[in-house]
Amino acid sequence: MALAKGYAAPAAKAPLAPFTFERREPNDDDVVIAIRYCGICHSDIHMVDNGWGMSVYPLVPGHEIAGVVTAVGSKVTKFKPGDHVGVGCFVDSCTTCAHRDVDREQYMPGLVLTYSGFERGSTTPTYGGYSDSIVVKEGYVLSIPQNLPLDAAAPLLCAGITLYSPLRHWNAGPGKKVAIVGMGGLGHMGVKLAHAMGADVTVLSQTLSKKDDGLRLGANRYYATNDPDTFTTLANQFDLLICTVSSPIDWNAYLNLLKVDGTFVIVGAPEQPVPVNAFPMIMSRRSLAGSAIGSIKETQEMLDFCGAHDIVADIETIAIGEVNRAYERIARSDVRYRFVIDMATLG
Amino acid sequence: MALAKGYAAPAAKAPLAPFTFERREPNDDDVVIAIRYCGICHSDIHMVDNGWGMSVYPLVPGHEIAGVVTAVGSKVTKFKPGDHVGVGCFVDSCTTCAHRDVDREQYMPGLVLTYSGFERGSTTPTYGGYSDSIVVKEGYVLSIPQNLPLDAAAPLLCAGITLYSPLRHWNAGPGKKVAIVGMGGLGHMGVKLAHAMGADVTVLSQTLSKKDDGLRLGANRYYATNDPDTFTTLANQFDLLICTVSSPIDWNAYLNLLKVDGTFVIVGAPEQPVPVNAFPMIMSRRSLAGSAIGSIKETQEMLDFCGAHDIVADIETIAIGEVNRAYERIARSDVRYRFVIDMATLG
Repeated sequence: MALAKGYAAPAAKAPLAPFTFERREPNDDDVVIAIRYCGICHSDIHMVDNGWGMSVYPLVPGHEIAGVVTAVGSKVTKFKPGDHVGVGCFVDSCTTCAHRDVDREQYMPGLVLTYSGFERGSTTPTYGGYSDSIVVKEGYVLSIPQNLPLDAAAPLLCAGITLYSPLRHWNAGPGKKVAIVGMGGLGHMGVKLAHAMGADVTVLSQTLSKKDDGLRLGANRYYATNDPDTFTTLANQFDLLICTVSSPIDWNAYLNLLKVDGTFVIVGAPEQPVPVNAFPMIMSRRSLAGSAIGSIKETQEMLDFCGAHDIVADIETIAIGEVNRAYERIARSDVRYRFVIDMATLG
Repeated sequence: MALAKGYAAPAAKAPLAPFTFERREPNDDDVVIAIRYCGICHSDIHMVDNGWGMSVYPLVPGHEIAGVVTAVGSKVTKFKPGDHVGVGCFVDSCTTCAHRDVDREQYMPGLVLTYSGFERGSTTPTYGGYSDSIVVKEGYVLSIPQNLPLDAAAPLLCAGITLYSPLRHWNAGPGKKVAIVGMGGLGHMGVKLAHAMGADVTVLSQTLSKKDDGLRLGANRYYATNDPDTFTTLANQFDLLICTVSSPIDWNAYLNLLKVDGTFVIVGAPEQPVPVNAFPMIMSRRSLAGSAIGSIKETQEMLDFCGAHDIVADIETIAIGEVNRAYERIARSDVRYRFVIDMATLG
């Protein structure tokens, strides 16, 4: 056992505060990581608040982890001390069923979340990346390309893969018109990734306040959704829309922006059901779908793609003592576009 | 011009009554058809009632047309007098845009509906199949295989293709688990077609009252949706669900019956929006989609498939004078499984 320092929420909706806890002794197949940076994901805030009713306290959030390997178990072959590595939303999964083979373990039962989960076959809770070290099985550690700065690469582990996976699954690329709904932590990654994949990219944001950023990051067009004309102008235009907004917007209006056979993919989930009209789907064979993060294999593919295209998040780096204030700012969408905690400030 | 006899609704929600009207003089590329049988589709009733606000009166319903060719224009090459032919939901379409090439003209603007539409470039309304003859462009006439009885083949032109198209589009076949929601005119065709494609077929019907029929038509399993255990027993089981029910059922409960990457396809549209929860989609990358009829090419493929597998509808043949009573019986789901009008009874 080794002591780790971090920040934890002691109870639902309580402010995060310093917390010392134990990390497990590394097994043969484990990688020990000195965490350098951890991104702040919206779901960290939901989990601190017990918004999904599944939180375990004390809760150390953080699943956008970037760091450096400090030690490896005797059976580890892919990593060595000094390597730049990342850890995303899960640290173990069911490896026995057929679904592991088809590269979609993130959708299977048996997933062990990086925080507020339980180590496989035990009652020991998992603690996340708002801390100085973590011990993770080799199969769930990602390699971060050497050319990417660790701080801005951290958000790739959740925000990046959350957009990369549906873009790939629904074939974004040359000749495809893709719209990203929402220009936040997820949305700005969607713009960069879809552009790098060769798609024609449109941003649909509430206002034009971030238009310059959107175009700079690779969007071909930028429209305000508070302008009703947008929904007339863009009717039947897109092969793929990815909705990163978790407020209860009118999905039907967006479905009408799809071409025949187009797909509207939800990655930001509203808490309440949204009324859906069947006609926009039936009359153009459109689909409404959901997508969650990505498999380990796909996450590595995403990191390699980002390395090849020099893609990282646009970030604002903070000291860990500022985390509670950062949560408040995220609630006001006051961040461009992702907060990343510098773990050197743990002191 | 030639006079045709038929039955028409003179106004919204009025009973159908005998009606005499003109069919156009055949052009070079037209086929003249003596209508022998016409199926009664739910949408005939909606259209008579102006349920979609697009009806033109007097309205001669009918788009499940089966008959015999009596004459052809000089440029017609695919048909000759005596041939068994069918006409489905549309009799013309946009032929200039790219979508015609990709075999999905049913989703494009410019479609001319078989009834309550307007002939291309004119204000002449189209009149449907509750009549003794029709004149249709060669490209919109389907060949009905000689081994299929014309009366029971008529419903293939709408009910058949409405199920065939999504079953093919979403790859129903060996190794796939398909559920058909609703055991009516559409649903019973779905059971026959999915079974003939080699899929494992389950029927989900409100009660078990039609279970014997379902199993006889090819279902492997039959469950009642008024039994809550059904939704527990069948969770995460299906690759594809096709919902033929237009009452506002809880789609979320059905989404949970899909495997990872499964699709719930709506072909029976409720008039009101249905509240949809994003989580069953996000957490298993499931899709909710719609589908409408099929292209001409796909409809011919369906008819050839039905010829090869001896598939027709289960029908109850009526005289045209019984049509208003048949509409009442359809409203009570009192038909197994499709009414077909015998046009010899037009007198």
